[in-house]
Amino acid sequence: MESNSYQREREIAMYLYCPFFGRVLAFLQRVQISCDVLLPRSRSLAPLYPNEAMAFSATVFLSPKFSLPKVSPPSYLISKFRHSSFPIRCDFSSDGTVPPSPSQPPLHSSFDLRAYWTSMISQIEADLDAAIPVAYPDQIYEAMRYSVLADGAKRAAPIMCIATCELVGGDRSTSFPTACALEMIHSASLIHDDLPCMDAAPLRRAYPSNHTVFGIGLALLAGDALFPLAFRHIVGRTPNSLVPPEAVLRVIVEIARTVGSTGMAAGQMLDILPAVGNEQTDVMTVLEKKFGKMAECSAVCGGLLGGAGKVEIEALKRYGKALGVLYEVVDDILLEEKRGIWSNGQSGKMRSNASVVMALGMERAMEIVGELKEKAKNEINVFGDKYGDRVLPLYSFVDYAVERGFVVESTRKAAAAATATTTENCNSGSS
Amino acid sequence: MESNSYQREREIAMYLYCPFFGRVLAFLQRVQISCDVLLPRSRSLAPLYPNEAMAFSATVFLSPKFSLPKVSPPSYLISKFRHSSFPIRCDFSSDGTVPPSPSQPPLHSSFDLRAYWTSMISQIEADLDAAIPVAYPDQIYEAMRYSVLADGAKRAAPIMCIATCELVGGDRSTSFPTACALEMIHSASLIHDDLPCMDAAPLRRAYPSNHTVFGIGLALLAGDALFPLAFRHIVGRTPNSLVPPEAVLRVIVEIARTVGSTGMAAGQMLDILPAVGNEQTDVMTVLEKKFGKMAECSAVCGGLLGGAGKVEIEALKRYGKALGVLYEVVDDILLEEKRGIWSNGQSGKMRSNASVVMALGMERAMEIVGELKEKAKNEINVFGDKYGDRVLPLYSFVDYAVERGFVVESTRKAAAAATATTTENCNSGSS
Repeated sequence: MESNSYQREREIAMYLYCPFFGRVLAFLQRVQISCDVLLPRSRSLAPLYPNEAMAFSATVFLSPKFSLPKVSPPSYLISKFRHSSFPIRCDFSSDGTVPPSPSQPPLHSSFDLRAYWTSMISQIEADLDAAIPVAYPDQIYEAMRYSVLADGAKRAAPIMCIATCELVGGDRSTSFPTACALEMIHSASLIHDDLPCMDAAPLRRAYPSNHTVFGIGLALLAGDALFPLAFRHIVGRTPNSLVPPEAVLRVIVEIARTVGSTGMAAGQMLDILPAVGNEQTDVMTVLEKKFGKMAECSAVCGGLLGGAGKVEIEALKRYGKALGVLYEVVDDILLEEKRGIWSNGQSGKMRSNASVVMALGMERAMEIVGELKEKAKNEINVFGDKYGDRVLPLYSFVDYAVERGFVVESTRKAAAAATATTTENCNSGSS
Repeated sequence: MESNSYQREREIAMYLYCPFFGRVLAFLQRVQISCDVLLPRSRSLAPLYPNEAMAFSATVFLSPKFSLPKVSPPSYLISKFRHSSFPIRCDFSSDGTVPPSPSQPPLHSSFDLRAYWTSMISQIEADLDAAIPVAYPDQIYEAMRYSVLADGAKRAAPIMCIATCELVGGDRSTSFPTACALEMIHSASLIHDDLPCMDAAPLRRAYPSNHTVFGIGLALLAGDALFPLAFRHIVGRTPNSLVPPEAVLRVIVEIARTVGSTGMAAGQMLDILPAVGNEQTDVMTVLEKKFGKMAECSAVCGGLLGGAGKVEIEALKRYGKALGVLYEVVDDILLEEKRGIWSNGQSGKMRSNASVVMALGMERAMEIVGELKEKAKNEINVFGDKYGDRVLPLYSFVDYAVERGFVVESTRKAAAAATATTTENCNSGSS
């Protein structure tokens, strides 16, 4: 069993992250380190589903905590897509240096997306915590909090919203309430997507999904309650001295359009319906509605709150959509192998109609990654001259979507983990 | 079986609508008219569930189409609560005259709630029809339309919203979009409430519930899509020349508060949880959240759009809440007998924790009806001097909640039914 797992992992690693993964796996096989020793360090293991722990996660290798000797990560994907001529890229590693591609010297290699991202997560989580206090009746609030404040949430939508707001010169405080609201919306949609009548996922981010803990009825209601709470949060918390009510209304419409029958609900419906064929149009439409819309909405809302003009909003819209789909196509490529190892629904992402790899094959999926990466970056080139370095987070998001150069973690959790490690070391030393 | 049904019906009729119902039932028993002959005329019978047709519905007797000789309807409930000293009442029957109680001459007996209500339903339904056009992907729009445009919907929330807007001097056009949005919200909550993980109701208003027709997943998504569509509809359709954006934002917050964890979602959660005891606080809290909130919201939104002041909004809030709970307590009383005949969940309303009659007994339920009727009317007395006759619809809603003096039907459907009857008569005459 283990050797089979290794074999599969090696195959995909050779395909995707060769030679980095190949080297790592060869090293593991050579020194015969047991999966059981390494896997508890992975964020993607389910504490309540020990059998699943045998599914070998690529995440463990990408984690900055992973203790193997550092290797420069110019993977197959990275090297494949880096040669496209975008002027800006980011340094993904806060604790290491990625050597620039010889053909494309980075103009702004100092930008640290990981630090930028991590620095905001704690504030977002604190705001979310405060926005959903436990009140009567407790159960519904507990169910809402369980998903919204879950470990492992990347807070990608909020970060995107804040970044586009700041890009166009908006104050960060104007976008924070909407950023948090987007996370509520995202959580609500995940709760509903995981239900047995949808993707039937017992796990979400390696933890029991909401209905696994609270039951189907309560999970459904927690989702139903999070959607409107998001709207209340936006209206109640957006500083009206900085944002005119018309802009808030536009944000509300944008989110409503994203959530409903023109967006995520339609995407999810297309995903759970019997397979609609393998044509590219179909699978890409599902991806655009189910995933692209949320990134598009996040980018647009930030722009609206920051005071972006019409042309800028349109550019952000196309950028966000391309980025959202790009992220999911890469996820598809990474998850496709997991699907072979895990049973359906265990991963928290079951895609009957939304798997690009299944529908179009790995080769076409890789081409799409390249096309979307180029499209996303092209859309924001327009901002470079006007806003300078403020556009860097947006370029970096595109690279991150492909490269997944770090594991997103809140500073609070990182600090807690660091404290725990220190304490452990002290205890080891004293004992 | 039939005689048992008659017996039960007669018992509740004697209690509630005596001597009117008592007389009708005695007449039926005397002439031995079969249930099967009469029941197809009732709106509350399920065409797809013929067995349910044996459940004897009180509605059939209240229908204006019911062809028994007209009897003045001073029922037990009506006579019990009419002696409270409210200056205004309405004439519920558009095709007959209700003799005024000798002790309380009506000051405004000319107000015809049925005509007022019916006149607006067609416009509301036309707007709803236009607001949910079928687009790609068709299935989700079909599912949304199925519930929103369902036969038998009373459109009580929209009518309330329009009435309170007009009460405070607002133009009807300012409240129409929100009125329609409230109906979408109401439909969405009913779709979710009917799901197997909730009330498990295969029927809604005597027709198959949404998930019975479209499946659970699609029904869930139809609900998820209707909530945001409601917000889009308000923002997109409310005339901004007449309503300032701040008022629209307040309406959105009001609806969000009603739908979420402070309102209907919490109420539904309390209703599906294991019984929480029989104390009055609990059952009334469930009723207030699950039903009172929607009426409260409808009244408040109309007021906000019409430009009501703070004190007026507070009065409308208390009025709406009392009215919403009142309606449901009376429904409880009427349905309690049906519960004995029908199996759980078949009625489209299953209430484990929200049945006042079950929790507190019929006598206390009747007292609560009296208290709420008085409270609701007291709350709007303040509007009488300022707005004159415009307050009449609000008084009439209270009486309607208790008396159910007519069956609400759109003019379009009524016209269609009239045409059908005429055609039928012509055909009979010619044949």
